[in-house]
Amino acid sequence: MMRVGVLTGGGDCPGLNAVIRAVVRKGVEMHGWEVYGFRDGWRGPLTGQGMWLSPDDVEGILTRGGTILGSSRTNPYSDDGGADAIKRVLSDKGLDALIAIGGEDTLGVAKRLNDDGVKVVGVPKTIDNDLGATDYTFGFDTAVHIATEAIDRLHTTAESHHRALVVEVMGRHAGWIALHSGLAGGASVILVPERPFSVDKVVGWVERRFEREYAPIIVVAEGALPEGGAAVLQSGEKDAFGHVRLGGVGIWLADEIASRTGKESRAVVLGHTQRGGTPTAYDRVLATRFGLHAVDAVADGDFGVMVALRGTDIVRVKLAEATAELKTVPLDRYKEAEVFFG
Amino acid sequence: MMRVGVLTGGGDCPGLNAVIRAVVRKGVEMHGWEVYGFRDGWRGPLTGQGMWLSPDDVEGILTRGGTILGSSRTNPYSDDGGADAIKRVLSDKGLDALIAIGGEDTLGVAKRLNDDGVKVVGVPKTIDNDLGATDYTFGFDTAVHIATEAIDRLHTTAESHHRALVVEVMGRHAGWIALHSGLAGGASVILVPERPFSVDKVVGWVERRFEREYAPIIVVAEGALPEGGAAVLQSGEKDAFGHVRLGGVGIWLADEIASRTGKESRAVVLGHTQRGGTPTAYDRVLATRFGLHAVDAVADGDFGVMVALRGTDIVRVKLAEATAELKTVPLDRYKEAEVFFG
Amino acid sequence: MMRVGVLTGGGDCPGLNAVIRAVVRKGVEMHGWEVYGFRDGWRGPLTGQGMWLSPDDVEGILTRGGTILGSSRTNPYSDDGGADAIKRVLSDKGLDALIAIGGEDTLGVAKRLNDDGVKVVGVPKTIDNDLGATDYTFGFDTAVHIATEAIDRLHTTAESHHRALVVEVMGRHAGWIALHSGLAGGASVILVPERPFSVDKVVGWVERRFEREYAPIIVVAEGALPEGGAAVLQSGEKDAFGHVRLGGVGIWLADEIASRTGKESRAVVLGHTQRGGTPTAYDRVLATRFGLHAVDAVADGDFGVMVALRGTDIVRVKLAEATAELKTVPLDRYKEAEVFFG
Amino acid sequence: MMRVGVLTGGGDCPGLNAVIRAVVRKGVEMHGWEVYGFRDGWRGPLTGQGMWLSPDDVEGILTRGGTILGSSRTNPYSDDGGADAIKRVLSDKGLDALIAIGGEDTLGVAKRLNDDGVKVVGVPKTIDNDLGATDYTFGFDTAVHIATEAIDRLHTTAESHHRALVVEVMGRHAGWIALHSGLAGGASVILVPERPFSVDKVVGWVERRFEREYAPIIVVAEGALPEGGAAVLQSGEKDAFGHVRLGGVGIWLADEIASRTGKESRAVVLGHTQRGGTPTAYDRVLATRFGLHAVDAVADGDFGVMVALRGTDIVRVKLAEATAELKTVPLDRYKEAEVFFG
Repeated sequence: MMRVGVLTGGGDCPGLNAVIRAVVRKGVEMHGWEVYGFRDGWRGPLTGQGMWLSPDDVEGILTRGGTILGSSRTNPYSDDGGADAIKRVLSDKGLDALIAIGGEDTLGVAKRLNDDGVKVVGVPKTIDNDLGATDYTFGFDTAVHIATEAIDRLHTTAESHHRALVVEVMGRHAGWIALHSGLAGGASVILVPERPFSVDKVVGWVERRFEREYAPIIVVAEGALPEGGAAVLQSGEKDAFGHVRLGGVGIWLADEIASRTGKESRAVVLGHTQRGGTPTAYDRVLATRFGLHAVDAVADGDFGVMVALRGTDIVRVKLAEATAELKTVPLDRYKEAEVFFG
Repeated sequence: MMRVGVLTGGGDCPGLNAVIRAVVRKGVEMHGWEVYGFRDGWRGPLTGQGMWLSPDDVEGILTRGGTILGSSRTNPYSDDGGADAIKRVLSDKGLDALIAIGGEDTLGVAKRLNDDGVKVVGVPKTIDNDLGATDYTFGFDTAVHIATEAIDRLHTTAESHHRALVVEVMGRHAGWIALHSGLAGGASVILVPERPFSVDKVVGWVERRFEREYAPIIVVAEGALPEGGAAVLQSGEKDAFGHVRLGGVGIWLADEIASRTGKESRAVVLGHTQRGGTPTAYDRVLATRFGLHAVDAVADGDFGVMVALRGTDIVRVKLAEATAELKTVPLDRYKEAEVFFG
Repeated sequence: MMRVGVLTGGGDCPGLNAVIRAVVRKGVEMHGWEVYGFRDGWRGPLTGQGMWLSPDDVEGILTRGGTILGSSRTNPYSDDGGADAIKRVLSDKGLDALIAIGGEDTLGVAKRLNDDGVKVVGVPKTIDNDLGATDYTFGFDTAVHIATEAIDRLHTTAESHHRALVVEVMGRHAGWIALHSGLAGGASVILVPERPFSVDKVVGWVERRFEREYAPIIVVAEGALPEGGAAVLQSGEKDAFGHVRLGGVGIWLADEIASRTGKESRAVVLGHTQRGGTPTAYDRVLATRFGLHAVDAVADGDFGVMVALRGTDIVRVKLAEATAELKTVPLDRYKEAEVFFG
Repeated sequence: MMRVGVLTGGGDCPGLNAVIRAVVRKGVEMHGWEVYGFRDGWRGPLTGQGMWLSPDDVEGILTRGGTILGSSRTNPYSDDGGADAIKRVLSDKGLDALIAIGGEDTLGVAKRLNDDGVKVVGVPKTIDNDLGATDYTFGFDTAVHIATEAIDRLHTTAESHHRALVVEVMGRHAGWIALHSGLAGGASVILVPERPFSVDKVVGWVERRFEREYAPIIVVAEGALPEGGAAVLQSGEKDAFGHVRLGGVGIWLADEIASRTGKESRAVVLGHTQRGGTPTAYDRVLATRFGLHAVDAVADGDFGVMVALRGTDIVRVKLAEATAELKTVPLDRYKEAEVFFG
C-alpha cells in the first residue's frame, strides 16, 4: 500500500477541490492508498500540518471553489534546509510520493524537490492560462465565464448612457482572459500585455463605435501598457501619497478616453470575483481528469512529470518543460480579434 | 384615441425595458392608443426626439437590461422655459399624457410638470430601493442578486487564503443593497450609511471570525462612514493629486483591517456590474405590472400619481408623497442582521 | 436556558437551510439556547432521531438547497398515540418548544400538536406560494427564477425552428409559478389550474403569434385543465397499461396544438429542477428573516403562531389561520397577464 | 468583390449566431464582400429566400441562442434537381461561394454540392459533440453547462428525500453530454449509448451510494440501452396506444431502480432546455473563431473543406473526412469516469 501526499499552492483557482477529490477517490478506492492532505501549500510539508483524507472528506467539494487544503505562497527553498525539512516530514508520515497542484512557482519547487530526490507529480493550475506545456488549465474557463457575464451586463449600461466602459480583467503578463472574455463579450477593443497599445488607436475605435450608434466596451488586461511606457499605476500599488489603488491601467485609460473624446467614460475592475466560486463544467471535467491522471502517474512510478492537456488527451510532460516559459497570446490570435475592434 | 408619451430618466436599471414593453402592449393592443417613446430622459420631451412605438418595437426587450429609449440626467427646470418647451412638444405631437419612469429626480420633475398642467403618471425606479412610497422598486432585486453571486464567489477565495475581503456595493444614502446582499451572502459584517460604524467593533468581528477558523466577508455600502467622520474618499472622486478613485470606504476599510489585525485584507468594488444586464424574474414581473398599472392610471384619467407596490398589490400614490422622503434602513432591520456578525 | 427543537417537513424547498441556520445562530448565540435538529420531518420527534446543532453545524448551509435535517411526509396523527410519542420524546430531551418548518400538511400537524399542548411555532414553506396567510414564502422566487431561465432558453429554439413549445411547470392547485414565470419569460399563453382553458382560444393565440412571425411559448401549470374536463393524465401517473407519465397536460396540449395548427409543437417538463439548488438572494433573505422571527416568537412565549410576510414586515398569524385556505391566483391577476397573450 | 452566402441547417445550437456574426464582420469589413443570409437551412438556397446582411444586422446577436437565419431539415438531394435549383439561385444572386453551418446532414449535403461544382466551406455544429474531425464543436459546452447546473440542483433534492434521481440528457448515438455533465455534476452512475448497461450493476451502485448515506444521481444519455436489448421506448415516440412519451430510458430506469431497491426514484428529462439560450463564453469564442476561419478558407479559394478545432488551433479538413464517422465515447474515457460510480 502506498501513502501519497497532496497539496495546493499559490493563488486559489476554481477546480482545485475537483483535483483533490479525484486524487482521493481514485487513490483510496481503486488503489487502496492512504492520501494525506497538507495544509496551506508548501507550508504543510514543511511543518507536517494536514490530515488524512477519506472519500467522505471530499464528498460535495467538486462544486466548491477555493481549496479545502488552504493555500500559501511559502517557498521551501527560500530558507536553508527547506528541502530536508520536507523529506523528514514525508518520512515521518511514511509518504511515498507527493502530488503538487499549483502554478509556475509551486511547480518550480516541485521540480527542484524532485531533482533533490522527492517523488513528485505536478498538476498545473493557473487562472491566467499562461503555462506553456498544456493547452489549458482549469480555472481559466471559469475566469473567462465570470468576466464575460460581467461584460454582458455592462453592455446595456453603456448603451443606455452613451458611455464608454473600460473593464479591467486579470492578466499581468499574459492577456488570455482579456482575449477570450473580450471575444465572448463582444468588446470593441481588447488590450493585452503582449502588445503595447496606442491610445490614439483606442480612441479611434471608441469614436468609430459611437459613430455607429453603439457604446464601446474596452477590455483591458491589468498588465497592458500604452506605447512609450507611460507610468501607469497598477491595481494594489500605493501611490506616492499612500493611496492604495484598485484598478490600474483600466482607470488610467477611462480617464484618457473621457478627456480625448468628451464622452463619459467609466472603469470597472473585476478583481477577485474572477477567481472564486463554483467552477464551470469545463473546469470541473478538466480538473477531475488531471487528478485521475496524476494518480496514474504515481501508480506508474513516473515522477518529475506534470499532467497536461493536449487536444482532448491528458498527457505527461517533464516538470522542467512545464515551467520553462510563459505562454503568451501569439500575434495571430490577437489579430483574429482585431476584426471586431471599433 | 389617446396618444401617450413614455420616457426613462436617471441611472439605468434592469427592468426599464419591461415597463416600456408593458406600456406599449397594453396601450396599443388593448386601448388602441399611439405610444411615443422619447429619447434620453427629459431631453426627449424638450427636443421632441424619439419614435412611435409598436408592439414589434418592444418584442424581445423584456429580458434586456438598460433602456431602449436611452437615459440622461437632463432637468427641464434647470433652464427657464423648460416646461413650456415640453408642452409645445407634447402639443405638436398631439400627446395627451406622459408616463415618466425614473427615480427621485425624474419623479420630482414629473410632479412639477403635473402641477404646471401636464398630465403625468410616474413609475418608480431605483436600484437603491430608497423611494419611500413603495415597498420595492424593480432593479433592486437584480442588484442584490448580482452582489450576492459575487459574495458567494468571494467566500471561497477568502477561506483558501485566510484573508478578509471587503465588498463595496452601491448605496450612497441607503444601505438596502448592502443589507440584503450581506444577509443573502452570509457576510460577517454589514455596514450601511444609516449607521456610522466603529472600526474597533468591525475589527472585533473580523478577529472573532478568524478565531472560529473561517474567513470574514465585510459588505459595505459605498456611503457608509466610520464614526467620528474620518475623511474617506468616495469612488469616482479625484484626490488632491488628480488620481481618480475606484472604491472609497471599502478600500479604506480593507487597509484599516489589514493594519490592525495583521491579516491580509483586500477590497472588491462591484461598481457598474450591479446595474446592468438581464433583470431577475422578480424585477421583470414587478416592472411589467408597474407598466400595466401606469396605463390603467392614464386610462382612468388619474394623473399626478405614481404606481407603487404595497404587499402584493399595485396601488397609486400622489407624486408628492412619492418623493417626500428617502426610505432608509430602519434600526430594527439592521439589528436583525447583527445576529450574524462575527 | 431553553431547549428548542426544529424540523423540516414535506417537499424540499430552497431556503430551508437558511431558516435552520438563522434559528441556530440566533437561538444559540443570542439567547444561549440549545437547539435540537430532528431528522426527516415529523418522523424525528416520533423516534427521537436527530442531533444537537451548534453554529459550526450550520456554517456554509445558507447557500445550499434542500435541508440538512432531511424531510418526510410522515404524519404523527395517522396513527394512534403519535402526539403522545412526540410529547415523550420532547420531554426525554428536555425540549421546551418546537419550530416546525413546512407547508400545509406540516403546519396542520403543528396546529393540532399545539392544541394538544405542545408549544409550537410554524414557519411557512411552499414552492407553490399557495399559503394564504403570508404574501410570499421562500422557495417560490427560486422556482420562478429557474422556470424563467428555462423559458428564456426555449425562446431561441422555438424561433429558430418556427415551433410552438409548451412548458409544464409546478402547480397542482395554484398557478402562481406559471403566472410569474410566464410573465417574466414573455410567454404567449399562460394556463393555470384556477381557470379551465379553452383549447380553441389557445390555438387562436398560438396562430396569432405565428402570424406575427414569432414562435409561441405556452406556460402551463401541471394542474391546469381544459374546459369540459377532458381526461388528462398527470405527470407521475401510470396509464392503463402501466406506462409512467412524465408530464401531463403539457404533453397533451402540445399534441392538440400540433394537430390543430399543423405546426411542430413540443413539450418540456421542468419537474424536480424547479425545487432544488441554491436559493435566490430573495429567498435567502426571506427564509433568514423567518428563522429569526420564529426565534423571537419562542422567546416571547408566543406559541400556536406562524411567522408570515406582510409587505416588508414579518408578522405572526395564528396557525389556524395559516392553513385555513389555499391562496389561488385571483381573476384580476390572471387578467393582467392576458394582455400579453398571442 | 466577392459575394458569399451563409446558411444554418439542422437542429439549433447555441453559437450559430456567433458564427454568422463573425462571417459578416470579417467578410464585409475586412474583405469588402457582400454576404447573403439564406433562410431556414437548405430551403433558402433552393427558393432564394433570405437577405443581405450588414454589420448592423448582426449587432447584438453574439449572445443570443438559436439562429437569426432560421433552420430546417430540408435536404436538396431528396428531390431530383435540387442541386440545379441551388446553382440557379446562387447564379441569380451572383454568389461566388457558400458557407454552410450544420451537423452531419448539412455537411453531407455540403460535400455533395461541392462535388457537384458549388464552392462550399463547412462549419461543424453539433450539440452532441459526435463529429469526428474536430476536437469539439460549439453548442456542446453550453449543453454540458446546462445539464450540469440541473444536476447541481437535483443533488439537494435527492439528499433531502433520500431518493434516487435519474437525469436523462441528450445523446442518441454518442454519450458525450452524459459523460461530461455526469463527471462535472458528480453523478453516481453515468450511462452512455456506447456501452449497454447492466441493470444489476446500476442497482448495486445505487445501493452502495445509499449505504454511504448519500443519494444517487444517475445520468443517462437518451440513447443508452440495457444489456440484452430490452425494449425501451424513446422520448418522443408514441406507444401502442397513442400516448406520446417524454423521456425514454430515464423513466424506464427510474422504475427499475424503485422496484428493485424499494427506494423512491424519480426521473427528470432535460429535453430542449439543453439546446437553447445564450452560449457559454467557451462556445462563443469557438464559434467566432470558426466563422473567422471559414472566411479565410473562402478568401484562400480553399473549398470542399470544413474548419475544425485541433488542440487550440483552427485547421481545415476535407468535408469527406468530416462526415466519415461518428465520434463516440471511447472505452478509456468511460473507464475514467467509473472511478466515481457508487
